[in-house]
Amino acid sequence: MYEGAVQDLITELGRLPGVGPKSAQRIAFHVLAADPDDVGRLAHALTEVKARVRFCETCGNVSEEAQCRICLDPRRNAAILCVVEEPKDVVAIERTREFRGRYHVLGGAINPIDGVGPDDLRIRELMTRLADGQVTEVIIATDPNVEGEATATYLARMLAGMGITVSRLASGLPVGGDLEYADEITLGRAFEGRRRIDV
Amino acid sequence: MYEGAVQDLITELGRLPGVGPKSAQRIAFHVLAADPDDVGRLAHALTEVKARVRFCETCGNVSEEAQCRICLDPRRNAAILCVVEEPKDVVAIERTREFRGRYHVLGGAINPIDGVGPDDLRIRELMTRLADGQVTEVIIATDPNVEGEATATYLARMLAGMGITVSRLASGLPVGGDLEYADEITLGRAFEGRRRIDV
Repeated sequence: MYEGAVQDLITELGRLPGVGPKSAQRIAFHVLAADPDDVGRLAHALTEVKARVRFCETCGNVSEEAQCRICLDPRRNAAILCVVEEPKDVVAIERTREFRGRYHVLGGAINPIDGVGPDDLRIRELMTRLADGQVTEVIIATDPNVEGEATATYLARMLAGMGITVSRLASGLPVGGDLEYADEITLGRAFEGRRRIDV
Repeated sequence: MYEGAVQDLITELGRLPGVGPKSAQRIAFHVLAADPDDVGRLAHALTEVKARVRFCETCGNVSEEAQCRICLDPRRNAAILCVVEEPKDVVAIERTREFRGRYHVLGGAINPIDGVGPDDLRIRELMTRLADGQVTEVIIATDPNVEGEATATYLARMLAGMGITVSRLASGLPVGGDLEYADEITLGRAFEGRRRIDV
């Protein structure tokens, strides 16, 4: 319905998650009326994020360097590792200020329907990290849904017999939801009440 | 909570209308995982829209040329002018296929609370367009809310005594809402049932 550049922008905005046709139109007209510097900053931020952001070689978290800030921080306890699905889960846990260990980001959860198996996740990298015996405790903080539980059970079986304490975040997290939406207190209590997995 | 480029992108996305912090984070991680070409197209569309899109010198609609497609179309009836608030209202009316005249985009509505008076709208340009007597009918299609009604009444008084038929879109539009959200049938009927304003 719109001419060239306006329609192009509406089309591209409409591809973003959670942005429907009306929102895309609304944002496009906001952009048309906005200060060119503001729009330039957004366009720049989009290209910069693709150019500069990569994944930490150690833990798989987002990072602009070969290793992320948390892996490089000597004050973090290298004996405790928290395994999460996505980088946004690291941010959610950091917000609780309950956890002072390090992370391992799997890059998803086991999901046979979407064709995601253990080999598609950073599980091999996790086993390599654990090989030197420095880590004595692994906290599995995958999402409290079917895929997350399946991944937790799979990991607990992989880690059994390695002399590592393996735990799962306590119930207290709302079941069926996403870890990233939990409030700080709920997530903090889930850390305190984590329970050992016996397989 | 995030490092450099990711946080920059979340901040910039969060400035867009209707995009809260959680949506901004969700879009940012979508961008991180997306094909670089797709992200490049979005960044390009943002800068292009600011570089190429301007406003039609005649009607004030968005356009990439000095005059918009509708003003340049010789098949459009130059005797009937439809006055709207915003370019998106032109698109909404075009979708009904009920109206074959031309448009005049005011760039807003009279709104004393926001400090928008008649001089801030393209009313002077409207009077200039009407001066040659070519237009015999003006249809006022401002939003059916307080500001739109005030603008319609103001325009009707300005146009009184010029020998021009002045009408307002019929009731049938939901009151208190935005014209752009009306469905095609409601908006089409509102055109059919437009009523003359007698002042």
